[in-house]
Parts: sequence; C-alpha cells; structure tokens
Amino acid sequence: MPQAHYFLHHHPLDPPSRRVRLALAEKDLLCELILEKPWEPRDEYLKLNPSGEVPTLIIEPAEARSKTIALSNAGAICEYLEETISARSLLGDDPLERAEIRRLISWFEDKMYREVTSHLVEEKALKRLQGEGGPDSARIHTAYHNIHAHMSYIGWLTEHRNWLAGDDITLADLAAAAQLSIIDYLGDVPWDKHHEAKEWYARIKSRPSFRSLLGDHIAGLLPPRHYADLDF
Amino acid sequence: MPQAHYFLHHHPLDPPSRRVRLALAEKDLLCELILEKPWEPRDEYLKLNPSGEVPTLIIEPAEARSKTIALSNAGAICEYLEETISARSLLGDDPLERAEIRRLISWFEDKMYREVTSHLVEEKALKRLQGEGGPDSARIHTAYHNIHAHMSYIGWLTEHRNWLAGDDITLADLAAAAQLSIIDYLGDVPWDKHHEAKEWYARIKSRPSFRSLLGDHIAGLLPPRHYADLDF
Repeated sequence: MPQAHYFLHHHPLDPPSRRVRLALAEKDLLCELILEKPWEPRDEYLKLNPSGEVPTLIIEPAEARSKTIALSNAGAICEYLEETISARSLLGDDPLERAEIRRLISWFEDKMYREVTSHLVEEKALKRLQGEGGPDSARIHTAYHNIHAHMSYIGWLTEHRNWLAGDDITLADLAAAAQLSIIDYLGDVPWDKHHEAKEWYARIKSRPSFRSLLGDHIAGLLPPRHYADLDF
Repeated sequence: MPQAHYFLHHHPLDPPSRRVRLALAEKDLLCELILEKPWEPRDEYLKLNPSGEVPTLIIEPAEARSKTIALSNAGAICEYLEETISARSLLGDDPLERAEIRRLISWFEDKMYREVTSHLVEEKALKRLQGEGGPDSARIHTAYHNIHAHMSYIGWLTEHRNWLAGDDITLADLAAAAQLSIIDYLGDVPWDKHHEAKEWYARIKSRPSFRSLLGDHIAGLLPPRHYADLDF
C-alpha cells in the first residue's frame, strides 16, 4: 500500500518539535526533517506558517489527487495524528485520562519551558548560534534552581504511576522527555540528584522512537558524551 | 433531570480563565466563580492544582455517588467539555478543521498573550494590584506596537471566513475574544484602526455567553465606559 510522505519543519532546540518527532516515531511514521531557524524565518516558511514558529508538519498523501496538508503547532499536530492514525494511541480513551494527559503536556511544554528550558536554550545556545554575545548567568542560575521542582514532580508522578499520566506511555511523557532531552544536550540535567526521574528517562530514552533525537548534532554546539548513551 | 454543579477557580485578568467561562456559557452551563490570585496561590488551591495557575474547573456530578472532578488548564478543560457535553460543538468535527482551530487557539493564547496581553496585564494591572511599583513603559509600548499585527490577522481571517476558523464560532474565536476583552478592560484596543476586527468583536460581544465577562469589575481598576457597551 502506498504511504503518505511526512516532512517536518523543525529546530532541534525546540521542545515541541521534538515532541512531534517522538509522536511520529511512536506511530512508526518516518519523516524527513527540514531545519528552520525560527528567529529568522524564511519567507517561504512564513507562507506555510505565518507565526514563523516551529514545528510545521507537511503531509503529502499517497494518492496524487489528494491535497498536500500543512499543519502548524505541536498541540494541533499531535491531536491530528491521534484523530487520524490508529496505530498506538498516545492520548488514552477516557475523557478524564485525556484531560490529565493534556494538563501534563501544558505543565512541561509551557511551565517547565518558561521556568527552565527557555533560559538555558536562549542563554547557552541561541545567543551563541545568533552571535549575540555572552550568556546572562542570572537566567542560567534561575534555571538550575527551578529544574529540581520539575525533576521531583516527574519522580513523584512515576512513584504513583507507571508512566507520567497512567499505565501507558502518552504525549505527556513525550512532552516531558522533549524538555529533558534538550537540557541534557546542554549538559544541565542533575541526574545524580533525581533517581526516579532518571529511571523514567532511561526507559523512554531506550525506546526506538528516541533514536533520531539521540543522533542530533547542532553545528558549533557539541552535546556531552553521555547524551546519546543509554547507560548514563 | 438533576444537573451537575460547576465551580470555576479563575482570575478576571487571566485570558484562559475567560476562554473557559465563554465555553461553559456557550454550552449553557452555569458556573459559580471562585477568585484566585495565581501570584500568591492559597495552600488549598495548590492541592487542587499544584501549578497554582488558573483556571481549575470543579465538576460536582448530579449523582451523589459519583466523584467530584477537578480539571486544570484551559486547553484540557475545553477539550474535556467538547468530549463530554454534546451541546454546541466548539471544535468542529473534521480533523483538519480541528487542527486549524487548535493552531489559532495557540496563536492567541500563547503568541498574542506573550507579545501583547501579558505586557499590559502585568505592567498596568498586576503591579498595581500587587503593590509592586510603577509600570515599565517600554513593555507597554512594545504591546501597543505588537497589537496591530494581531488585530490585522483577525481582520484578515474574518475577510476570508465567517468566524476565525471557518463557518461557525469555535474555541478559536473564544481564545481571541478572551485576549481582546482583557485588553479592552484596560482601555488599550485601537478599535478605530481595525474595522474588520471590530466588526467581528461586536458580533461576539453581543452573544449571551459574553454577559458575565462584561459584568467583571476588578477592585481598584475600573474599565473604560465603553467596556460593557455593545455599541462601542
């Protein structure tokens, strides 16, 4: 049977882009990655997504007569995949369960990003990639302080549940892992202080869906040696 | 038939809280409002929602044997209401249409909030309510500059569609109206420069679901006279 083709406009330091890559891979959908710099969006990309943000998923259907689809925003993309691809549900099927998964996605993608990831990515990576001068150490220290509460929350959730939102792996796990995988690329996850969170991350890191993320290499910004190591 | 009881923990200057109020009212669900100050969350509220953020919706089911439910995060709450309450769909039924609605919700609730609403709410209202000194005029001017692109985008959308995401009113309209209604409370919407956006807002403002918002009065912070006026 002919398959649709997937192209993902993304950036490796953008957590929602990573969440979509993981969701596609969990559903066994191969996608071709197209690198975008959201801080200087190309005109051609702005036609696809006027916000200039990543990710945007392009779906070229197998039937030549069907229209190519462009979907922007990780939340919209992941919900669309849940609604149209039956392989491996990542959102549960009970409304209450789904509400808990969506609450946790926002916890990690909005709250943890604002309190931790954004500071580290902007100060330690984007400023360098954009040639914008030295990092603001106050923001880095804020992130180092804030990360513990989020690691503890992951630990607390996994003490009460098999995965973050319940028995099965869901988009909530992918959203949390997307944040941590970027912070880990920057070498800033205090693994030795958070054993439960580390045990959970080791489980998700060893899944086939994670391989593409572990192969990421950003020019001018090498990850620490343990980044791609399943025994970290 | 006995009805469930709804209680919404909210803040009138929080756009996602307003979006949930509008969604409940569009579905003809009455709710009792409970005021929270997310910048100094009560211990009791943190037990309901450990993030301390608003809104949180409490649903007390009609049957005494059923459990009371607490749902946090506007996105999770609105999706739950779509999945469980059949009255007036606010999310369409075609996956592509739903993806467009969700993209626009994020446009207004994340991007417009970050670029416009948050600056105005924090500098002109929250600092005063929290006794934190004078406003930072640079942030206010940033918001005054950025708001035009969002008003133009609303205008552009309504030139091509009846409502923001298509033929019918959806959560995308409620998300945009939630931002604008707060900025309007602060007297900062440049209505005279954006006729299409004004025409769209006049339509949504005259809906019965909007009445509760137009009755909002925040102690120490009066809205301009036109705020509750349907002919503004």
